Amino acid sequence: MLDPKIRLTLESVKRLSRRGAKTNLRNLINKTHPADLAVLFRHVDDRLQQEFFLLVMESQGAGEFLSELDPIEYASQLEPMGKDRIADILRDLQPDDVALIIRHLEEELGQAVLSALQVDESAEVEALLEYGEDTAGGIMTPSYLALEENVTAKEAIEILQNSGDIEMVFYLYAVDEHGHLVGALSLRHLVTHAPSTRLRDIMTSDVIRVETSTDQEEVARMVGRYDLLAIPVVDDTNKLVGIVTVDDVIDVLREETTEDMLKIAGTDYQEITNRSVLTSYKVRLPWLFASLVGGVLAAYIMGFFKMALQNVVVLSMFIPVILGMGGNLGTQSMSIAVRGIATGKIDVRRTWRFTFKELRVAMLLGITYGLLLAIVAHFYFSGGLNLGIVVGLGICFSMCLAAVIGSMVPLMLHRMGIDPAVATGPFVTTAIDILGITGYLLIARSLLL
Amino acid sequence: MLDPKIRLTLESVKRLSRRGAKTNLRNLINKTHPADLAVLFRHVDDRLQQEFFLLVMESQGAGEFLSELDPIEYASQLEPMGKDRIADILRDLQPDDVALIIRHLEEELGQAVLSALQVDESAEVEALLEYGEDTAGGIMTPSYLALEENVTAKEAIEILQNSGDIEMVFYLYAVDEHGHLVGALSLRHLVTHAPSTRLRDIMTSDVIRVETSTDQEEVARMVGRYDLLAIPVVDDTNKLVGIVTVDDVIDVLREETTEDMLKIAGTDYQEITNRSVLTSYKVRLPWLFASLVGGVLAAYIMGFFKMALQNVVVLSMFIPVILGMGGNLGTQSMSIAVRGIATGKIDVRRTWRFTFKELRVAMLLGITYGLLLAIVAHFYFSGGLNLGIVVGLGICFSMCLAAVIGSMVPLMLHRMGIDPAVATGPFVTTAIDILGITGYLLIARSLLL
Repeated sequence: MLDPKIRLTLESVKRLSRRGAKTNLRNLINKTHPADLAVLFRHVDDRLQQEFFLLVMESQGAGEFLSELDPIEYASQLEPMGKDRIADILRDLQPDDVALIIRHLEEELGQAVLSALQVDESAEVEALLEYGEDTAGGIMTPSYLALEENVTAKEAIEILQNSGDIEMVFYLYAVDEHGHLVGALSLRHLVTHAPSTRLRDIMTSDVIRVETSTDQEEVARMVGRYDLLAIPVVDDTNKLVGIVTVDDVIDVLREETTEDMLKIAGTDYQEITNRSVLTSYKVRLPWLFASLVGGVLAAYIMGFFKMALQNVVVLSMFIPVILGMGGNLGTQSMSIAVRGIATGKIDVRRTWRFTFKELRVAMLLGITYGLLLAIVAHFYFSGGLNLGIVVGLGICFSMCLAAVIGSMVPLMLHRMGIDPAVATGPFVTTAIDILGITGYLLIARSLLL
Repeated sequence: MLDPKIRLTLESVKRLSRRGAKTNLRNLINKTHPADLAVLFRHVDDRLQQEFFLLVMESQGAGEFLSELDPIEYASQLEPMGKDRIADILRDLQPDDVALIIRHLEEELGQAVLSALQVDESAEVEALLEYGEDTAGGIMTPSYLALEENVTAKEAIEILQNSGDIEMVFYLYAVDEHGHLVGALSLRHLVTHAPSTRLRDIMTSDVIRVETSTDQEEVARMVGRYDLLAIPVVDDTNKLVGIVTVDDVIDVLREETTEDMLKIAGTDYQEITNRSVLTSYKVRLPWLFASLVGGVLAAYIMGFFKMALQNVVVLSMFIPVILGMGGNLGTQSMSIAVRGIATGKIDVRRTWRFTFKELRVAMLLGITYGLLLAIVAHFYFSGGLNLGIVVGLGICFSMCLAAVIGSMVPLMLHRMGIDPAVATGPFVTTAIDILGITGYLLIARSLLL
């Protein structure tokens, strides 16, 4: 369901390309918002993609366009071009965009591109590359406005008027003679004070800041929590080295939640854009292995109940429903715990309170569906009264167990400093499967035989 | 893992409250950022929560504090106070904050509070309440700066200097004599042009805007895509009626992804903050019922294979692993599809391409684990060569099936205009269970008996 405006542009792009009308195509690209260009890029076929990419690279919006693409998307376009052509393209971009791209090229090629750039260009980029990819340093932009605190409002406005290439200015930062961050003020403050006022007298000195090594998720949380438009990044001596703007924070948030959701399912962010079957295979292999081991263990345990399963075949028919109900309830408890932790809505010191609530919900649900299933088992599968009781108790047991495991594991992982989104999924589902079946069969053996 | 600064403040709050030092507590609250107050509020015990809430309500940051809380959190504090006390508290807040709160009070109480407000206060709030909760109208703020397009830069700055109560100004909007939106410009543009320039000559007339009825998710997507700090909201005659700021967009994004993740698991956003066991019970009941029906259907189908299950008991022991591997792979395909659609990374017109890739990944994984399981089944469960083949083929079949269902269902739902995040979960897991087992038992019957 493409935006109608973009759909129209897409038709024009295809038509112009078919007709070979390069100049018209170039004009169309220049008139289109870079973010829309990224959407168009994804919707043209592979052959046209290459032509389209090159034309966009020559346009004004190249940097913004690239920052809207996924690394895998631009890397696959750039890599075949060779270092000199890539360096040519990167020359007109902001240093943070250049660093981002070089980070995602093959390592050797990235180094070669860096050497192919002019010395003055590559220095800034190299400095940015020093920082970890998922840190404030790795996502910050070095284009911001920092002024000495003794500058007047009038002088500040003049400086602002002459700083054409700095995008998205909303705050001015005040620094001392050593470049240490000492204050911040909004553009609005600047214009609403007398021209002769010094920044020192109108700025806030209690500036919320992050260090270059701060994790990008934490940066995003702070910008969101304090409703900031940009957050200054300082090094370990409190020297201002960059800012992270709110539009980058939105990208981080979207990326991190997608990552979280996919990790719970045992896969990875790169799977969304990557087209290689082999990469997907490798990403998913380990998690499914955990699940396989769990399944084999379940089979092994069921071996102890072989007689029961042979004498009362109908027992095995209810295994899917016991597993399904337990698994689903466990996933619910787990999802609430994982998201509750991520959004700070669950007090992690009150594990017991949360688990106890989940357990009560599971008991109510277990009794409801246990009764229902007991009746179904009794009448439709004519297994006698005991079968109904066994199945009913089994489902109630597996649901309660699932609630406890699903709610406690993420909280425990979080306490141990492990990201619950990454590690919870495989552990929880496998544990619920094995314990749920064991419980069910133990109940069966004691009541049926 | 509470922020150390907040932890310190938390200790102080507890100490001051124990000592009954109300004035000190009030001072501490006034000095603390409203967003931090919301975190503190969640970490004090129930008794202190009430005292704390009342003190915050008397402070400057009351509005921002409330907008950081979940509706359920403030509603449970406010409702016992009665309409007049609530109206007193709301009096000092911005109209959009007031509308938000009234929306989440019990309906009758909300109406009573609205009547208890002064006429001039309630008019604006009532206008906001007309809009749907999840629309641009429902989340916009009516405090923005709109000027006639003939105003000069100098006049605009003067107006700006006298508009103290408008928070977060970054863009000025230009309107014609009827209030229709005709342009926009940033504060920065304003200060970098000659004082006598008219807004008309420096503004952009191609303003990205939304209508009051636009879904909040779409609003968030546009702000994110075009890197905006605020987006103007117009009515159906293009009259400017409000703006949505980027900080609200961040809240929307976080809320929507949490919502999506919980809906996939068959539960709901309110579960995270709600403490009522009965509400959780009701939210989860329908989805688990779907799963129960699926489980009973699976049991029914297994009835047709009763003889096979009785003669080869070991067959039933591999049901958990067949279900588990299929379910896990299906969840992976489904998560990638759902997130890929939400982030616009999957081209929904190319369903087949995506499904085909998922199928190839599943086949590779299925062959790997099918072989492994076949060997395990053959040696450890001494079922003979055929059992190994049956189990291996069974797992491979259920994984391929899961990939097809997991990848196609979300895309098909999306095409039909149904949000895949809401409806995919139950359908996919149940379908995979039933079809996976049927396939496995059919293979068993044809190869073993």
